[in-house]
Amino acid sequence: MNGTVEPTALEREIMASINDWALQIDANEDGPAFTAAIIHEGRELVRGRNTSRQDNNPTHHAEVVTIGKATGALDSRHLHGCTLISSCQPCEMCLAAMRWAGIDRVIFAAQQENIDAAMFQFPSLVLPQYHAACGGGFDYAGGVHAEMVNHIYRETATRWSAD
Amino acid sequence: MNGTVEPTALEREIMASINDWALQIDANEDGPAFTAAIIHEGRELVRGRNTSRQDNNPTHHAEVVTIGKATGALDSRHLHGCTLISSCQPCEMCLAAMRWAGIDRVIFAAQQENIDAAMFQFPSLVLPQYHAACGGGFDYAGGVHAEMVNHIYRETATRWSAD
Repeated sequence: MNGTVEPTALEREIMASINDWALQIDANEDGPAFTAAIIHEGRELVRGRNTSRQDNNPTHHAEVVTIGKATGALDSRHLHGCTLISSCQPCEMCLAAMRWAGIDRVIFAAQQENIDAAMFQFPSLVLPQYHAACGGGFDYAGGVHAEMVNHIYRETATRWSAD
Repeated sequence: MNGTVEPTALEREIMASINDWALQIDANEDGPAFTAAIIHEGRELVRGRNTSRQDNNPTHHAEVVTIGKATGALDSRHLHGCTLISSCQPCEMCLAAMRWAGIDRVIFAAQQENIDAAMFQFPSLVLPQYHAACGGGFDYAGGVHAEMVNHIYRETATRWSAD
């Protein structure tokens, strides 16, 4: 595990739960098995999954979908004070989306260095560089319950991205 | 102007047209005046604008909206061979979204170095770094008809991002 913060008990619990969901998707479908959740005021507000195939839209990553659900649920396009939980380290699109939403805390399982490079679009840029490039404007913890899902993102990325 | 390619006459024409649209939005609304278009097989396929306020969704930048329209129009989540045109240099979210869609050519007007840093989430990372970090996996031209819109993105970013 690495990052700038330690996850809370609630964050760990939700992390394990959305990892379980990713495992179910991976077992039952031939598509991207990414899942995410958003915590607001000490409870899980919403959760979402990658729906890029279902929606025919490559921007519908789990984090983007979940941010959209959260802004809908709170009737606000700002999610200040919320925490993003993700089964996989957010890609560059999702990391920037998180910041546009005003979220400054992210907890994730699988880390970039342990999975397929195809999960990222600018693979030689790494999270500490993004962290520094915004003046440390968010906290993160990576590798949380990663042992549950690392194999998904190691084995199937090329298949998912190739079609 | 700078970049890796020269824009075509069609790209310049569409660039001017979506810049006009951005100017109209800026004149009539108190919100983000960003516009984009996608060219497919030598003609404009779709155009779109930032609808983050209308949709209460901070991920609905012009480029993301336009990519969604294009994948809908082509009934495919892949946009290989398309060109993205944008009134402003795509932010990190939109640049990664472009690559997830398989687009490898982007032409834009206002350039990061001439506008408000608030238009970007990782402001100390710049386009040549992203270009290098994916092995030069896309072509770009920036500053095309930028004189039309630079003032919008210089003057209003703080107002747009503050609310």
